[in-house]
Order: sequence, then C-alpha cells, then structure tokens
Amino acid sequence: MAPPIRRLILDVMKPHEPDIIEFAEVVAGCTGVSGVNVALVETDRVVQNLKLTIEGDAIDAATIEGAITDLGGTVHSIDGVACGERLVDERDTPQDN
Amino acid sequence: MAPPIRRLILDVMKPHEPDIIEFAEVVAGCTGVSGVNVALVETDRVVQNLKLTIEGDAIDAATIEGAITDLGGTVHSIDGVACGERLVDERDTPQDN
Amino acid sequence: MAPPIRRLILDVMKPHEPDIIEFAEVVAGCTGVSGVNVALVETDRVVQNLKLTIEGDAIDAATIEGAITDLGGTVHSIDGVACGERLVDERDTPQDN
Amino acid sequence: MAPPIRRLILDVMKPHEPDIIEFAEVVAGCTGVSGVNVALVETDRVVQNLKLTIEGDAIDAATIEGAITDLGGTVHSIDGVACGERLVDERDTPQDN
Amino acid sequence: MAPPIRRLILDVMKPHEPDIIEFAEVVAGCTGVSGVNVALVETDRVVQNLKLTIEGDAIDAATIEGAITDLGGTVHSIDGVACGERLVDERDTPQDN
Amino acid sequence: MAPPIRRLILDVMKPHEPDIIEFAEVVAGCTGVSGVNVALVETDRVVQNLKLTIEGDAIDAATIEGAITDLGGTVHSIDGVACGERLVDERDTPQDN
Amino acid sequence: MAPPIRRLILDVMKPHEPDIIEFAEVVAGCTGVSGVNVALVETDRVVQNLKLTIEGDAIDAATIEGAITDLGGTVHSIDGVACGERLVDERDTPQDN
Repeated sequence: MAPPIRRLILDVMKPHEPDIIEFAEVVAGCTGVSGVNVALVETDRVVQNLKLTIEGDAIDAATIEGAITDLGGTVHSIDGVACGERLVDERDTPQDN
Repeated sequence: MAPPIRRLILDVMKPHEPDIIEFAEVVAGCTGVSGVNVALVETDRVVQNLKLTIEGDAIDAATIEGAITDLGGTVHSIDGVACGERLVDERDTPQDN
Repeated sequence: MAPPIRRLILDVMKPHEPDIIEFAEVVAGCTGVSGVNVALVETDRVVQNLKLTIEGDAIDAATIEGAITDLGGTVHSIDGVACGERLVDERDTPQDN
Repeated sequence: MAPPIRRLILDVMKPHEPDIIEFAEVVAGCTGVSGVNVALVETDRVVQNLKLTIEGDAIDAATIEGAITDLGGTVHSIDGVACGERLVDERDTPQDN
Repeated sequence: MAPPIRRLILDVMKPHEPDIIEFAEVVAGCTGVSGVNVALVETDRVVQNLKLTIEGDAIDAATIEGAITDLGGTVHSIDGVACGERLVDERDTPQDN
Repeated sequence: MAPPIRRLILDVMKPHEPDIIEFAEVVAGCTGVSGVNVALVETDRVVQNLKLTIEGDAIDAATIEGAITDLGGTVHSIDGVACGERLVDERDTPQDN
Repeated sequence: MAPPIRRLILDVMKPHEPDIIEFAEVVAGCTGVSGVNVALVETDRVVQNLKLTIEGDAIDAATIEGAITDLGGTVHSIDGVACGERLVDERDTPQDN
C-alpha cells in the first residue's frame, strides 16, 4: 500500500460560484481529510485563484480532484505534497534563492 | 452535515459608524464564534476597510454576513476559510512568490 | 451582554506632557485591563504619536478613551480590536500584500 | 557502519508524468524514510523541477536515487544532507549573505 | 497605587566613559529591576547612543532616569513602556507600515 | 582541559567526488560529533562549496579538518564556533546591519 | 555587589593566528562563562573581525578583555550587555528603523 498522503497543496481555479466556503466544505468532507485551509490568491471578473492546504491521515488526491471538478473548479497545479509515516515540512537550503 | 468552519477571514467595507468595536462585538456574538480579530486596513473620508479574522468551532458564514450587512457593512471578499475536524494553517510553497 | 473586548490597539496623539509613562499607568489602571504596551511611534516639536496595545478580560473602550482624553490625548484611530471568549490573532493571507 | 542519514534534500527534474504525488509516494516507500515533502519549484512545457525534503532514521540515498530514476526523473543535485545520531539543522552565520 | 511598570525601553545618549557595562550594572541595580539589556546603537567621537530594555516587577522610572543622569548620560526618549498585572507585547497591525 | 566545542560551522571547498553524502557521513563519524548538516552553497564545473554545521559534546576540530582533507576537500574558513558548558547561539544587535 | 553580567556581545579584531577556535576556547574558559558563540564577520589579508556572544551567570568583562588581549586580539566595541537577576532580551520598538 502506498504511504499515506498527509498534506496536499493545490493551486485551483474556479468560477465565482459556488463560493470559496463551499469549496472548503466539500474538500474537508472528503475521506482522509482532517482539515483544509483555503486562501484567496487572486480574483478577476470571471475566475478566482485559490490555494488549498489540505491535511489528513490518508488524503485521496483523486477523490479531491474529482470533488473540485464537480464544483466547476480545476486543479491548476499540485504545488506540494507530503506523505509517509509522519508529516515532514520543507526545509530551506542556500539553493532556494 | 458539512464539516465545521473553524476560521473565516473577511475583507469588509463599512461606513465610519458604527465603529470597529461594534462590528467586533456583533460578529463575536454570532453563534459558533469563539473570538474575532478586527484590524483596520484603510480609512478614507467615507469608508473603512477592515480585515476580520474569525475563529470558532462551527462558524455560520451566512449569519455573520447578515450581521455585517445589518450594521451597514459589506463583505468585499472572503480572503480565507479553514474547515474540518481541526484547524489547518496555510503552508508556504515555492509557488507563493 | 456584548462579548468581552480582550485586545484593543489604539493610535493616540498626545502633547509632550504628561509623558508616555503616565499614559501607560492611567490606561493600565482602567477596569478590565490586565496590561498595556505603549510604543512611541513618532515625536515632533509639539505632539507624540503613540501606539497602545491594551489587553484584558473585559476592556471598556469608552472608559479608556475618556481617560486618554482627560490626560490631554486624542484617540486618532482604533487600529485593532479582538473580542469574544478567547483572544484571536490576525492571520496572514495572500491578500495582505 | 556509516552514521545514518536523517535528512536528504534533493533537487529533482522530472517529466510531467508520473505526477508529483507518485514521486512522493514512491520515495516515501523507500526503506529508512519516515516521510517526504515534495514542493513544486518550477514547471515548463516539458519538465517539472521539484524540491524533495526527505526525513527518516536511516535514509538510503542510492535506493532513493534509483527509485527516482525508475520513475523517469533525475537527481539534478543533492542540496542538503544531515546525518549522525541526531538531526542537526543548518545555522545562520554572518557569512551567509 | 499606579499599576507596576514591567518593561521600559529607553533611548540613552552617554559619553564614552563610563562604559556600557557600568550603565547596565547601575540600572540593573535599581529597585524593581529584574534585568536590563543594553544594546549599542551608534558610536561617534564624543557620544554613544544606547538602547536599554529594562524589565522587572515594579520599575521606578524616575530612579532609573536619575541613575543614568548621575552617570553622565541623558534619557533621549522613552521608546516603550509596558505596565499592569502582566507584561503585554506590542502587536502588529496593518497600520504599522 | 579546554572547554568542549559544541558547534562548528565550516565553509568547505571540495571536488565533485566524493559526493556531499560521503563528506557528511565521514564528518558525522568523527569522535565527539552527534550530527552534521551539510548544505550545498555553490557548484561550478570543478568544485562544490559546502556549508557544514557540526554539533556534538566535544568536537575535535583538527580531526574533522583532517578527515575533510583526506577526502580531497579544504576548509576554506571557520565561520562559527560555539563552546563551553552549554551551547550558546549568536544574538542580534543593532550593530549587525 | 554589582548585578551579574549574563550576556556580553563583543566586536573583536584579531590577527589570523591564533584561530577563531582558540579564541572561543580561551573565552569559554574564563570564570563565570557558561558558553560562547564566535561568528566570523569579516576576514581580510591581515585581520579577522569576530562577533562574540558570551553567556554565563557572572561574566567578568575585564578578565575576558584581558584574555582576548593576551591572544593578540582587541575588543573593538562592546555591542551589547545584559545583566541582573535574569537574562533580558532586546525588544523591538517602532523607533528601531
């Protein structure tokens, strides 16, 4: 069995409706998700760009992508993923700048 | 039942009266809210721009939006929302800059 | 009863006398105040601009504004207020910049 | 026996497929790995540049490099490694700027 | 009785002698002071500009100002004061920039 | 007996081979070392510039310098050292900028 | 008795020999010193500029200055000192910029 996904960071584009709260509630309702943080990155006349930080013990990325698509959104890119027995954070190195 | 909203960050425009304290008290009085932080972002001759960071165990966004409207304010945008079993913070990624 | 105010951040203009210490002592003496931090933001020939961070379990904003006025100061603006069952801090979002 | 590797930070280039999640799952599945954080650094038409922060009690760098190669990726550079009895973080000095 | 002063931050100008250590020792010896941090801000041919961060349970500002004057120094300005039952730190707001 | 060295920060130049992992393992294997963090600062066609943060209860600097030399590396400079009964970190002062 | 010095931050100039490690060991060996952190600030052909962060329960500044002088170094300036019953850190104020 693949090691569990513990954090998934998604860049999502969505129409104005449904709103950011409904996206958060639907994603937070997916199995394996303990909580989700949705931050509004940009809004223009037609779409909103959201950053989703999703955490849980066994996140199912495909289910989440499906839920987002069902709401009319698109996963523009997967910006980060952390998986394994424990949650590991990114660490700075001199190469980052 | 939708997973509970644990943090809601709102960008609010309001007239000078009622003042920022009354807005804080009214929003803090809404069901499901444990506390609210209201920061003054900008003031001009006619309106004030506030940033509300609202936290609780089961925030009811519609009730809060209604309370703000009743005070003469407008929710300009929902800048952030966190919901689920536990409160998840946004995490930096190299894509943020 | 309105939810208690737990933090109040005030931008205050005052004449050189009485000094910043007397302002701090008077505000700290107001009911419901556990402590106050007064930072000197700017000084010119006539006035001083202070930033007051006031914390407590049930801050009475009107009493504090009155005390500041009695000392010859003016509350230039209320820059922040936090109220409710617990003290909530402001949270960053991508919209802040 | 060589002291165990406890953190390995890799700069990896990979084609668009398989996606970043599969890379994370495969690396997290390698012996001695407790968890992995994969951050998307850059994407262009053909390749993605990832930053892997891998932590564990006895990371086997060769196995990980092999797993990445098997997925079609390349370890562009080893940006950081920490090994020994305990995990030591990099410390700033005035020489860093 | 006025609420106790728990932190006092002073901008002090002093001649080269006595040195910064003697200033620190004398201020730390004043009643109500638990400790003092003295940072050298600037030095020119004649004077030194010091920043004193003084903490205690009941700081006596007048005594400290007197002690500094006796050493040949001048309190250029009181940059910060915190008083009350507990020590409160300054909190950032969007107005600070 | 000289007080023990608890942290040593070295700027090291090395050829591409052996790689950064071997350097980390060899240094981590030296007596008195609890762990080492090696960060890649710069790479060019011929050499790599590494920053080593070495921690332990009684680091033997000469042994480490010897081990690095045996691997074909050179200690370009000792950027930091902390020694004594306990590990002391560098503290900022206004003079640092 | 003067309140004890708990932290002393010195800007030291020294010739290339003896090296930074010997300076650290000698200062760490002085009475009242629990530990010392020595950071290399600058090196030129003739001298090195070091920043010493010295901590202890009763630091004897004169002894340390003497030890540094005996090694061929010079205390260029005392950049910081903290003394009293407990160690107090410098606190930011709006006046710092």
